[in-house]
Amino acid sequence: MAAEKPVVAVTCTAPVNIAVIKYWGKRDEKLILPINSSLSVTLHQDQLKTTTTAAISRDFTEDRIWLNGREEDIGQPRLQACLKEIRRLACKRRSGSPEDPLPLSHSCKVHIASENNFPTAAGLASSAAGYACLAYTLARVYGVESDLSEVARRGSGSACRSLYGGFVEWQMGERADGKDSIARQVAPESHWPELRVLILVVSAGKKLTGSTVGMQTSVETSPLLRFRAEAVVPARMVEMARCVRERDFQAFGRLTMQDSNQFHATCLDTFPPISYLNDTSRRIIHLVHRFNALHGHTKVAYTFDAGPNAVIFTLDETVAEFVAAVRHSFPPESNGDKFLQGLPVEPALLSDELKAVLGVDPAPGGIKYIIATQVGPGPQVLDDPGARLLGPDGLPKPAA
Amino acid sequence: MAAEKPVVAVTCTAPVNIAVIKYWGKRDEKLILPINSSLSVTLHQDQLKTTTTAAISRDFTEDRIWLNGREEDIGQPRLQACLKEIRRLACKRRSGSPEDPLPLSHSCKVHIASENNFPTAAGLASSAAGYACLAYTLARVYGVESDLSEVARRGSGSACRSLYGGFVEWQMGERADGKDSIARQVAPESHWPELRVLILVVSAGKKLTGSTVGMQTSVETSPLLRFRAEAVVPARMVEMARCVRERDFQAFGRLTMQDSNQFHATCLDTFPPISYLNDTSRRIIHLVHRFNALHGHTKVAYTFDAGPNAVIFTLDETVAEFVAAVRHSFPPESNGDKFLQGLPVEPALLSDELKAVLGVDPAPGGIKYIIATQVGPGPQVLDDPGARLLGPDGLPKPAA
Repeated sequence: MAAEKPVVAVTCTAPVNIAVIKYWGKRDEKLILPINSSLSVTLHQDQLKTTTTAAISRDFTEDRIWLNGREEDIGQPRLQACLKEIRRLACKRRSGSPEDPLPLSHSCKVHIASENNFPTAAGLASSAAGYACLAYTLARVYGVESDLSEVARRGSGSACRSLYGGFVEWQMGERADGKDSIARQVAPESHWPELRVLILVVSAGKKLTGSTVGMQTSVETSPLLRFRAEAVVPARMVEMARCVRERDFQAFGRLTMQDSNQFHATCLDTFPPISYLNDTSRRIIHLVHRFNALHGHTKVAYTFDAGPNAVIFTLDETVAEFVAAVRHSFPPESNGDKFLQGLPVEPALLSDELKAVLGVDPAPGGIKYIIATQVGPGPQVLDDPGARLLGPDGLPKPAA
Repeated sequence: MAAEKPVVAVTCTAPVNIAVIKYWGKRDEKLILPINSSLSVTLHQDQLKTTTTAAISRDFTEDRIWLNGREEDIGQPRLQACLKEIRRLACKRRSGSPEDPLPLSHSCKVHIASENNFPTAAGLASSAAGYACLAYTLARVYGVESDLSEVARRGSGSACRSLYGGFVEWQMGERADGKDSIARQVAPESHWPELRVLILVVSAGKKLTGSTVGMQTSVETSPLLRFRAEAVVPARMVEMARCVRERDFQAFGRLTMQDSNQFHATCLDTFPPISYLNDTSRRIIHLVHRFNALHGHTKVAYTFDAGPNAVIFTLDETVAEFVAAVRHSFPPESNGDKFLQGLPVEPALLSDELKAVLGVDPAPGGIKYIIATQVGPGPQVLDDPGARLLGPDGLPKPAA
């Protein structure tokens, strides 16, 4: 099945995002509409990204998808929802401009290949980057230029926040059809160049409650979650946008920690309760508070998603000292050389005072490794044909 | 200093209580008035009790106190508040009945000795039993017959609930002076004879946030705690009293677990966050939910106070099977013979189905030991002079 008729292929990348005001709970399960707005920081794709190639051809007889090299069921409802929505938008656009010269119809079948540059074992939320990349790539290949929030959101709620770089809010919206539940950029990635992000990948054995099932159970059983969504988050969204606008790290860090804690509190208030934090997560929380207490103000902040890994926000001037503090509290076991990945971090000496405070209770091996990164841009189109994940025949290229 | 003039001595015991609707947060720090009502189960003194001897004599030149054989500072504000309050009540009573024949005045100095029959290392809240016993014993020695809620409460809020056996509620009250913030019995210890209590004492190394400081920080920083106190607890108090009245174990167990989880959720929503549960606590929570799921209904319920130990409620018919399940999930390390203390529990075989579900991830040594007990009576006066902790000279007897 060599490609006799033209294959149109587009390859894009999209970033991971980390919420600082958390999304937890849907008011509409089918449309994936949230019970509160959320705000996130887009991480740099140099460290963490999804790459997706989408190809359409009249030769393709069915839609197909490969994730990290393995073919998956394209019939999954969320994939279908994305595909259906992008084709609806493509169709709408075509009918709006009948002189459109594109030779390929929105009815063409599509082949999709997608992969992450980070191990899924890291427990990082890959679905947001994945569905943002899918939406962005499909839009390019089908010639859709409208807002993609809904396409990405239908795959995974928080994916709509990965459609932009920098600082992004997902406005919950009010409409029943979700048309006003969209992501928008609060500030671009260039806005706060000193901000740094450290991902502390925690050793964890146990299987977790998936976030889709978890948040539904929370909505059904936690009285605190409802209160949070209605009475706490609206003011926090306003305050967090101000913190970002004014680059007020102290207030940004404090509110980030408070909102992470409140999200995990509502998980615990769920019945049966959900626990994403483990003893290592709690040690990291303690470490951050002791580090800040010693410095007399908030120099470092943590946030945790639906898993035990910590995401740390700090400023460039503090990175070296905090990484040294982490090494001191969680001595690396075997992978001393690979313990720190991503952006380079200078070695730093800890003050005796800091050592004394932190060294009380070391937990060797508690943290597997650290990924150092920063705020980054939104999805990108890759023009280099060598970056394509699908060959001219529309099938995945063999791994290099 | 042999006692030439008469020493009046009284010895009493008081029980530990475990809240099923939790008290967390004061609206008045000095008077120890809570932000919500609470409800507890009084545990049997055969397993857990405080014994206190109080003696008054005109020979005593100062108030003194010994706890577990060691003299402590009687000047502690909470001890002083209890003493002051009991003397105020004694004085009031005396002036109400001037013909009172008691030879000793409320102005006499007092010697107090108090000890627990369980190790403080067990991490069980001993202050409630301790202050209830202090209030009860001082009332007997000074001839006070009025309600002792305030005396006990001024020592430790939850102590007022240890003044009664069975099921006890502490009504938060509305008055600024706290006169209506009192404990009362919801049902006596004979009301629900099938109910059993298992205390799972968890191995824990780390020092905890004390509950006095913890709850104050929660009141100041947790938006969820305020909501819980105002909007969630009132209905739960009504429902819990109904569960007890009707001996509805399913609803009792479910609400007990939900309220424990919500209390810990508000701790996590505190800033900096407070974590009393550790990974072993969370394993116990999981175990209980899996056990119940396998049986298709709530046969066992957990509750956790300000520490990692679990208190389990169940019915007598389920004790043996659940203890076997705990042994299976947390194989005892060295103390196999002392693993189970308190009421006798028959050995039981686990079904293969239960073993398969529970045996996935055993945690040897995670639980140090189990104390099996039941609902018990309130404070008791001991008439046996041999039980006295103070000798005729008003000083602690040497340990036997």
